[in-house]
Amino acid sequence: MIRVIFFDLDDTLADTSRLAEMARRNAIENMIRHGLPVDFDTAYSELMELIKEYGSNFPHHFDYLLRRLDLEYDPKIVAAGVIAYHNTKFAYLREVPGARKVLIKLRELGYRLGIITDGNPIKQWEKILRLEMDDFFEHVIISDFEGVKKPHPKIFRKALKAFKVKPEEAMMVGDRLYSDIYGAKNVGMKTVWFRYGKHYDKELEYREYADYEITKLTQLLEVLERENDSNKEVHIT
Amino acid sequence: MIRVIFFDLDDTLADTSRLAEMARRNAIENMIRHGLPVDFDTAYSELMELIKEYGSNFPHHFDYLLRRLDLEYDPKIVAAGVIAYHNTKFAYLREVPGARKVLIKLRELGYRLGIITDGNPIKQWEKILRLEMDDFFEHVIISDFEGVKKPHPKIFRKALKAFKVKPEEAMMVGDRLYSDIYGAKNVGMKTVWFRYGKHYDKELEYREYADYEITKLTQLLEVLERENDSNKEVHIT
Repeated sequence: MIRVIFFDLDDTLADTSRLAEMARRNAIENMIRHGLPVDFDTAYSELMELIKEYGSNFPHHFDYLLRRLDLEYDPKIVAAGVIAYHNTKFAYLREVPGARKVLIKLRELGYRLGIITDGNPIKQWEKILRLEMDDFFEHVIISDFEGVKKPHPKIFRKALKAFKVKPEEAMMVGDRLYSDIYGAKNVGMKTVWFRYGKHYDKELEYREYADYEITKLTQLLEVLERENDSNKEVHIT
Repeated sequence: MIRVIFFDLDDTLADTSRLAEMARRNAIENMIRHGLPVDFDTAYSELMELIKEYGSNFPHHFDYLLRRLDLEYDPKIVAAGVIAYHNTKFAYLREVPGARKVLIKLRELGYRLGIITDGNPIKQWEKILRLEMDDFFEHVIISDFEGVKKPHPKIFRKALKAFKVKPEEAMMVGDRLYSDIYGAKNVGMKTVWFRYGKHYDKELEYREYADYEITKLTQLLEVLERENDSNKEVHIT
């Protein structure tokens, strides 16, 4: 019997891929408007390469972009990037379609809800609070706060402990086969792979760890019906 | 003959004191709304003390506030503070009354304009760009970029060098008697103390270094008339 449902945050509840892309594009446009002496495509592809190497939470993207383009440090240009990035980010921060509707329904059905996410704790909370989603969740577990990342079992075990439930009473919903699905399955949770965003066809070598696959969050309600009816594993695709 | 006019940024062109106060108050309110277990006055006075000790550009105000209140670190509460702070800051970022009007008039009269400011270069540029003031200025000199602070003469000399003018051809306008007025006078510039914001009655021991005193930015036009007519020092109050 499933009692607790855990969600990943980025590209599961918060529509993050699109937000980040729009914010980065607008940042480059504004940097060029304020004097960055390269064309859009050069700057954008350099930025994407940099993000790939340093990660999306690296706090010096725009400074390093200037270095990589062999340009002198110019705080005006960096500020232009930061401003446009933030303005756009907030403008495009939206829930994944249907997220709030599903959360309301799940609470109505008596499920207890949690979030298990990687990333900078303050930035992750910022998204949750700006989306006004915090009241749905009993516990938000952010792996960076523990010094580990998904799929490390520590983070999933900590989540189970916070809710005082056994692994088989918990279900993990996430868009990443490796960190969310493989990770949660390893500690014994039920797993639902949400095929959404840029990872919808990635990390397929971990697909066997998914008990269910859905392409819309609302399908989670059907998953739970089947799970509670039969306790049998069925793939919905 | 004055050819170049330098402005300080905070509380001279950008109305920063009010902005910071409103942003901090809203940050505390939102932190309490999201679980900070102390009353507003306790939290606010602790924050003000912290800012006094660590400076307003210290990047960990809200983390340290929790520590000082003997509370456990909670990224949700810190995020609530950060969000409210930023939203409010941008909402209250305004020019000092009449600033743009005066800048337009000065350019019309043929003066060349610059900014000499302390502070984090990206944050300072952010204010200039958000206020859409950058097109008025030939050079923006930010002391932190040089590793010194006003009133260090290096920063004023660098400004003169950027414009290729002699000290007596330049005028500094600022709200701080010590950093702006004493500093600029020391390298031989004309000085106009703008009595505005929270420093309107502070650092009076440096008052003798002010060639002029004004309480509205528009009075700068009268100052320049007198300066160019007579080259005699007159105090307008």
